[in-house]
Amino acid sequence: MRVLVPFDARKPKTRLGETLDEDERGAFARVMLRDVLAGVRATGREPEVLATGPVDVDGPVIVDERPLSEAVNVALSRTDEPAAVVMADLALATGPALAELFETPGDVVLAPGRGGGTNAVVARHPGFRVDYHGVSYLDHLRAARGCGASVAVVDSHRLATDVDERADLVELLIHGEGESHEWLRARGFELSANGGRTDVSRSG
Amino acid sequence: MRVLVPFDARKPKTRLGETLDEDERGAFARVMLRDVLAGVRATGREPEVLATGPVDVDGPVIVDERPLSEAVNVALSRTDEPAAVVMADLALATGPALAELFETPGDVVLAPGRGGGTNAVVARHPGFRVDYHGVSYLDHLRAARGCGASVAVVDSHRLATDVDERADLVELLIHGEGESHEWLRARGFELSANGGRTDVSRSG
Repeated sequence: MRVLVPFDARKPKTRLGETLDEDERGAFARVMLRDVLAGVRATGREPEVLATGPVDVDGPVIVDERPLSEAVNVALSRTDEPAAVVMADLALATGPALAELFETPGDVVLAPGRGGGTNAVVARHPGFRVDYHGVSYLDHLRAARGCGASVAVVDSHRLATDVDERADLVELLIHGEGESHEWLRARGFELSANGGRTDVSRSG
Repeated sequence: MRVLVPFDARKPKTRLGETLDEDERGAFARVMLRDVLAGVRATGREPEVLATGPVDVDGPVIVDERPLSEAVNVALSRTDEPAAVVMADLALATGPALAELFETPGDVVLAPGRGGGTNAVVARHPGFRVDYHGVSYLDHLRAARGCGASVAVVDSHRLATDVDERADLVELLIHGEGESHEWLRARGFELSANGGRTDVSRSG
């Protein structure tokens, strides 16, 4: 199985603009990417980064400047074997969580993201294509059924948590086991409980 | 195994105050409770509601006006068998998701909620007590280790999703399979995608 990890090498993590400055967002996106690649390798698979521009990682990088869905679909069309697509901001994606994704049977296996996204997919059906716009999880369910593919859904909080917004940093501080957890801690981020849901605060 | 479902019969779901009026919040909390009870029953177990006041459900209700943690701990202290505590607002908690919780081995099994809460717990160790204040998931990890209990964590988006805030309604509209999903739909709620994460809108 090929494992593709799409990565925006240009302006990643803009929705963290009020929490991290531009340089930090770039660095944070790269450290999350490394955690995802480590999680994939922990399952015994070798990930390929599918990036919008050059990115310095330990492993193969395919550079494709096209929009996300188009670039992924081109990559899917060029492979005869099953392929997984795992988002680069799944900083909680441990080896066991990813192993469950990769090992779940089904022509199409979806890991929904919070808010209707599709955080990871395994495509074992040659007719399946992705479209990450809108409520992509529901679109992917329809697309899979539309091409006659059997569908399975992986129920995982780790895979459902793409780190896009400030509230997602809470999950990373609580559940993170990798480098990006340490990166946040080293920059002064900590949990801050003040009634209702836990927030993050930053010291120093 | 006893399965306790704590329920606030008085002023439930105040954080949905801008989305549902007071009567609706009371009705919505009860329909979510029914979904949780149905999920527990789908695993072959009979739930007991632990409520702050009388509540009209099909099944046993223990009324205890004390604060949540205290009421749960009294119930835990009064039982010799293993006990599970499942929050009443886990409207995505299907039978299979709950079965995984109940069947995971460990003296203490935790299902973290998004934002640091503890959405469900199985206690098979007589020394374990709950405390739902603050970042209770981390507190419960410490408490379990402190009494020498082995700990397991269930990684489930369905169990991590307690329905407290408007954004949580998105999850229910996308993934809900029970009565509370239908309840929302019947009151005009639908998904609304406008860039970034999906929101809900209400018609009529």
